[in-house]
Amino acid sequence: MTVAPSDIMASVARRQSEIDAPSSPVVHFDVGAPLHLACQQDLAPFSVAYETYGTLNAAKSNAILICHALTADQYVATRHPITGKPGWWDIMVGPGKPIDTERFYVICSNVLGGCMGSTGPASINPKTSAPYGLGFPVITIGDIVEAQARLIDYLGIDQLFAVIGGSMGGMQVLEWASRFKDRVFAAVPIATTAWHSSQNIAFHEVGRQAVMADPDWAGGDYYATGKVPRNGLAVARMAAHITYLSEEALHQKFGRSLQDRSAVTFSFSADFQVESYLRHQGSTFVDRFDANSYLYITRAMDYFDMREGRGSVLADAFRGTQTRFCVVSFTSDWLYPTRESRRIVRALNAVAADVSFVEIESDKGHDAFLLDEPTFHATVRGFLNAAALKRGLGS
Amino acid sequence: MTVAPSDIMASVARRQSEIDAPSSPVVHFDVGAPLHLACQQDLAPFSVAYETYGTLNAAKSNAILICHALTADQYVATRHPITGKPGWWDIMVGPGKPIDTERFYVICSNVLGGCMGSTGPASINPKTSAPYGLGFPVITIGDIVEAQARLIDYLGIDQLFAVIGGSMGGMQVLEWASRFKDRVFAAVPIATTAWHSSQNIAFHEVGRQAVMADPDWAGGDYYATGKVPRNGLAVARMAAHITYLSEEALHQKFGRSLQDRSAVTFSFSADFQVESYLRHQGSTFVDRFDANSYLYITRAMDYFDMREGRGSVLADAFRGTQTRFCVVSFTSDWLYPTRESRRIVRALNAVAADVSFVEIESDKGHDAFLLDEPTFHATVRGFLNAAALKRGLGS
Repeated sequence: MTVAPSDIMASVARRQSEIDAPSSPVVHFDVGAPLHLACQQDLAPFSVAYETYGTLNAAKSNAILICHALTADQYVATRHPITGKPGWWDIMVGPGKPIDTERFYVICSNVLGGCMGSTGPASINPKTSAPYGLGFPVITIGDIVEAQARLIDYLGIDQLFAVIGGSMGGMQVLEWASRFKDRVFAAVPIATTAWHSSQNIAFHEVGRQAVMADPDWAGGDYYATGKVPRNGLAVARMAAHITYLSEEALHQKFGRSLQDRSAVTFSFSADFQVESYLRHQGSTFVDRFDANSYLYITRAMDYFDMREGRGSVLADAFRGTQTRFCVVSFTSDWLYPTRESRRIVRALNAVAADVSFVEIESDKGHDAFLLDEPTFHATVRGFLNAAALKRGLGS
Repeated sequence: MTVAPSDIMASVARRQSEIDAPSSPVVHFDVGAPLHLACQQDLAPFSVAYETYGTLNAAKSNAILICHALTADQYVATRHPITGKPGWWDIMVGPGKPIDTERFYVICSNVLGGCMGSTGPASINPKTSAPYGLGFPVITIGDIVEAQARLIDYLGIDQLFAVIGGSMGGMQVLEWASRFKDRVFAAVPIATTAWHSSQNIAFHEVGRQAVMADPDWAGGDYYATGKVPRNGLAVARMAAHITYLSEEALHQKFGRSLQDRSAVTFSFSADFQVESYLRHQGSTFVDRFDANSYLYITRAMDYFDMREGRGSVLADAFRGTQTRFCVVSFTSDWLYPTRESRRIVRALNAVAADVSFVEIESDKGHDAFLLDEPTFHATVRGFLNAAALKRGLGS
């Protein structure tokens, strides 16, 4: 995890330029149109960076909003400007793919609090003319969705054909379906939960403490120092990454295989491949992600509880819904296990919603939703095709 | 996790005095009796600190060695000299308790590499007259057991009536039964595994990286600085602690309960009780444990693989054994799940060993072996009583 200072500076410079001039389109909402946040503060101005794929039809009835997970961004099917890697859901989104950009107009925006062009803690606070840092308000999944709704308004779309997302993206899907019942024709919450559990919060808290323990975090005001809390954020990412993979996936990928294939070194070097893999995950993550964004977005997830303000009755979040739901879980996902999806399904059933539930057999863990899982892809394709017929979008 | 410097110094001083003058008896092995380590280095001199309970009978046939887990020590049923808390297995060890000190002579020693009186990285390296730090050799579970065997020799005991331990203690039990087949009459490996999995290694690597990322770790040479890598070690402990509890135990203990019972604070304070609990676990651990010991002992666990050097055949580790085994697992232990215990049982069956296997129904996770689990306690008591009869120790 040791990195030359020049590399750190290059990475800071890369990220700062991305913040200053993102390559995605950005819609700016001015001081006259503040975002009223759950914490009761108004955020203004604010920006939402987004990518689109395909063509919006004349009726504006073929739009799909994809909501991204904790560490992803709007580059769902576009090469990433920092890493140069293909879009994070390239396997799922494109011409002829399960989310078919020849039929659908696909929108994906960077979440509020993010670091890829949407307003977040690295953005300039107009009151101080310096980056917000910890001066940025603590946001919620609801706030993230409200910012997305502003983007959808801006694009002139009354009703989204579908809202789709995995993990934290799935939380946004649920929040969309609950807040904007008339604006979501179909919803696909994948590998997600209606509230963050004690264990979920615990893992996030470890990550936040790792970031905050790094002296280079500097109380959140590291932007001007030329340093980033590289080690702390890398440790946070390593801990989180373990929760994204199943024990079986780790075993199949690495087992106890050694890096040099011969013998242990009796040292603290990365003897085992899994150590080297984790260190790599930690260190590359830091090149593309802002540490304060990590704090804010994990906090939003921890605060997520759709029972809140509803007398603990989850079903009340969906009462009156006309949306068609397809809830998807994966057998080996221990971060948001199938039982969490079943809770969502039970709540939807309780309000007589139109809901399908599919548990996909997979040994890949939580990250299965990002990977090559043919049954999962066929499920999404089939559900969207059927819903498109109902919506009068043809076959 | 913020701690006044005076507190840190007090804690350093407390631990240093414990290292310099532990309250337990210590047996010193001189330069003439080096410990030959798996890494091929000789360690000399070295010391083993231990506690004993009960009385060794004339035949020296009633001795039970208890092997402790990663962060425990020899104070199995003695008030801890630093924390002032009761012994870590007080519930299990004492007059009339499942490990009955009125019948048995109980020995528990601090592991090699530890920080409570046995030689470890905080001990003085005779070659430099300064603490070893990272100059301490990387040790294995086998090395830990060899050092224990020296203590048992010193106590004049040929055969232990039983060797018992949970978690890393269970690894030592297995190693004892394999290395010293004539010296172990009965063995009770609890909540353990015959090799560390990829996921086990991954969690430990996160902890080590957290320690090493702390500037106060100073490459392992922090002993003279008056500082300890407090934040890094606390983060390591927090991450590990999650793996000791089941999701269900966390849910029952904390759920999403808030610290102040009213509402979230929209800040990074410990809003949730689970956050406050974890922070407390992290910060109190640092007061009683040496960061380098944490690195060395986790490394020993990661290196543990009883198939090694045996053509991957675990059963070969036990071929010819006459020991009576009682293998115990807990249903909600996801660190070393029941399937790991079953692997041990299958290997023992393959060599026609005398083995009982008990899976205890518990929602307490890995830490169940330390807690009030009546069925577990009855199992250990019953097994020891039956084995004692066979050993001619009376009823």
